[in-house]
Amino acid sequence: MIRIDFNDLKSLLEEILIKHGFKYPDAQTCAAIFSENTLVGVSSHGINRFQQFIDLVKFGHIIPEAKPSIENSFNALEQWNGNLGPGPLNALSMTDRAIELAQKYGIGCIGLRNTNHWMRAGYYGWHAAEKGFILICWTNTIPIMPPWGATEPRSGNNPIVFACSRKEGHIVLDMALGQFSYGKMANYARQGEKLPFPGGYDNEGNLTTNPKAILDSLRPLPIGYWKGSGLALLLDLIASIISGGKSTSDLGKDSVDSGMSQVYCVIDPEKIRAKDLVNQTVSEIIDYHLAAEKADNGKVSYPGERVLKNREENLKNGIPVDEKVWQKVKSLKRN
Amino acid sequence: MIRIDFNDLKSLLEEILIKHGFKYPDAQTCAAIFSENTLVGVSSHGINRFQQFIDLVKFGHIIPEAKPSIENSFNALEQWNGNLGPGPLNALSMTDRAIELAQKYGIGCIGLRNTNHWMRAGYYGWHAAEKGFILICWTNTIPIMPPWGATEPRSGNNPIVFACSRKEGHIVLDMALGQFSYGKMANYARQGEKLPFPGGYDNEGNLTTNPKAILDSLRPLPIGYWKGSGLALLLDLIASIISGGKSTSDLGKDSVDSGMSQVYCVIDPEKIRAKDLVNQTVSEIIDYHLAAEKADNGKVSYPGERVLKNREENLKNGIPVDEKVWQKVKSLKRN
Repeated sequence: MIRIDFNDLKSLLEEILIKHGFKYPDAQTCAAIFSENTLVGVSSHGINRFQQFIDLVKFGHIIPEAKPSIENSFNALEQWNGNLGPGPLNALSMTDRAIELAQKYGIGCIGLRNTNHWMRAGYYGWHAAEKGFILICWTNTIPIMPPWGATEPRSGNNPIVFACSRKEGHIVLDMALGQFSYGKMANYARQGEKLPFPGGYDNEGNLTTNPKAILDSLRPLPIGYWKGSGLALLLDLIASIISGGKSTSDLGKDSVDSGMSQVYCVIDPEKIRAKDLVNQTVSEIIDYHLAAEKADNGKVSYPGERVLKNREENLKNGIPVDEKVWQKVKSLKRN
Repeated sequence: MIRIDFNDLKSLLEEILIKHGFKYPDAQTCAAIFSENTLVGVSSHGINRFQQFIDLVKFGHIIPEAKPSIENSFNALEQWNGNLGPGPLNALSMTDRAIELAQKYGIGCIGLRNTNHWMRAGYYGWHAAEKGFILICWTNTIPIMPPWGATEPRSGNNPIVFACSRKEGHIVLDMALGQFSYGKMANYARQGEKLPFPGGYDNEGNLTTNPKAILDSLRPLPIGYWKGSGLALLLDLIASIISGGKSTSDLGKDSVDSGMSQVYCVIDPEKIRAKDLVNQTVSEIIDYHLAAEKADNGKVSYPGERVLKNREENLKNGIPVDEKVWQKVKSLKRN
């Protein structure tokens, strides 16, 4: 691991994006999102995925200059087409649009079809929370988990975000519906470690903490077993219904991970409650939560707490980046 | 178990409700909800909980004639006070009000404070889906699960519903965020059985499938471990923020399970997509899901499927009711 300065990272990514067809200010915005994701400790949806992102641009699956366009609307509910533009730019744009709707109607909801991977879902939660809004958003994905009772992957892990604003640090839950991602399981496997909890079934149909066995069976567990499986189905249904876009089933027919459907729902709480009272509610709930008696070696935190800590530390000391990844990304300046 | 005819059950409950201060048509509606919940196989939120419901009425915690009143509103976003009315009636009324908002704005959202237990959350999902709407609603609860990393119960299990309409049978996910409810664990314990999956920690801090050990430690697991714990926190935050009502923390200070906060969010998909296309999307997704290759002895179903089967069977053959429960409920006619 080497340590990279946040601004150096952002400048490099911006330069590469410009070279691959992005214009200002989109190149800046897109570089900022990838850099921020890396800064807060989610390199898997930051610098470590940047080369793949550029590859998708090169092969025409991500269209740098494409912008979302509105297809249908009815007051606070809108349907947009992502036109296969860059996922992070589409997502940011739709978050902002849902915020506008919430300012006008109290709540706004958008179904977005035909978009691309938005990288770290939580980014949009932080963005909305920073402006004082509540955000609930999710995406469907290609089929990567078996539905409950099945062996064949026909569910997405459909990451979902719930975010709300807080003066001392926003509360942002960003969770995929798989208990462990394939990336995390591969990390455990590489280090020869077991998963801390059962993460799926092996080929014999036994629950296992052996990451290799799950990478082999392709039978990762949804959170809460049948419950997460049901939730994944409903999120795919609602996203596909209101966006009019591809379902997990449709996405599974393509050879490329592109064209997914998403939902953005924003609430403006200050339209019906005084800001001070909202802040008081949030503070009281978080204080109560954090003061719970700890288990031995237990730590009680709230969703988003680690993001803030990583951010502060990495801004000061530089962002830890795998040196091979850094060299590869730098080479994208040339081709 | 004895078998009770649906209409006999409904008439009995209606008579008892009238005796305890309910008026027409509220008594009919409330009896219909308790009876329907029993009919579809959820007696725990139907007849088995009816005596407790009447007790709460007797002690003044549920006020039979109270109606929800609006406190704040901004177009598609409203805040209501449940005035400690009967939870099922408040919930049905708020679902219908959110439907009206969705008809006007495409989406509608309500924060309801100061209400009472709504019994089976899925009931309101079926109600909205039957009318062609998408419903997302949830409630907070008293603290009954430790947050992740803690031993002390400071999280609600905050049941949440996601529902969408389907011609051949609606898709209704109704899930609490605990892996197993205390009621289910008590059933397993009574039958001397282990849980099929780890359901919590024992007093020594080990994950266990022994229901008695969890009933003793009061450390049930949230779904997906840290993920469900985070989700429970966010649902409590959002419900408390927009309703202006009691949080799980506040509810924990009371001696009675009353006064909770809820969110009702309804989307009218047909405002932005043709009904035929919506139906087609839903059918394709469910067909794909159900056709997944099964595990040995596995069964793939969709959320709501069992409800429909139980309903059909119990309408025909009568509803299985515990005879002692039946006698107790009948005795409520007299006092």
